[in-house]
Amino acid sequence: MFIAMNRFKVLKDATHEFEQRWLTRETYLHEREGFVAFYMLRGPEREDHVLYSSHTVWASKDNFEDWTRSEQFRASHTRASTNSNKPLTLGHPEFEGFEVIQTIGPLSNAAE
Amino acid sequence: MFIAMNRFKVLKDATHEFEQRWLTRETYLHEREGFVAFYMLRGPEREDHVLYSSHTVWASKDNFEDWTRSEQFRASHTRASTNSNKPLTLGHPEFEGFEVIQTIGPLSNAAE
Repeated sequence: MFIAMNRFKVLKDATHEFEQRWLTRETYLHEREGFVAFYMLRGPEREDHVLYSSHTVWASKDNFEDWTRSEQFRASHTRASTNSNKPLTLGHPEFEGFEVIQTIGPLSNAAE
Repeated sequence: MFIAMNRFKVLKDATHEFEQRWLTRETYLHEREGFVAFYMLRGPEREDHVLYSSHTVWASKDNFEDWTRSEQFRASHTRASTNSNKPLTLGHPEFEGFEVIQTIGPLSNAAE
């Protein structure tokens, strides 16, 4: 399995709008081959921001890369960058891709 | 759901030993109330390290905090800090706790 993460440093007065934007968006992920799950996570509050992290779990890195080359991916990211008049985050999200090397628990059988 | 993450900056010549130590350790997580899943993840390679991240998924933050106060937690962390003669990481692991605020996919029904 492969997990594509983005880390967002959200301005403290913009957390509500940031969450609403994610919770109400249209998503086509579940139509994609190899899509396993998506999680949006709210993390620690720091001096000038609250850390959020999105995790998209794929059966393989290839499935993720196919998604990034899709029309749906381009459409959703164009929308994300144009539907706000004010910045919600400090800088751009930070992308990190991870391979799952050990699984203990309910998804063990799905691990590669 | 609550995800307890630790981020490890592993020295490039220590990745094999780091992985072996995790893959072969004894774990008692599955005996704990509220334990959902554990993942060890290998992330991007950077100039002086490879980023790894461990994710322990709990039904609630309370379940996680109960675990950190347990004898099993103390025992496993004492072992981790004493069973090596050489450092495998740059500095200490960085802890971040996250609340799951949106789930799309197979665990949707388990989300709180």
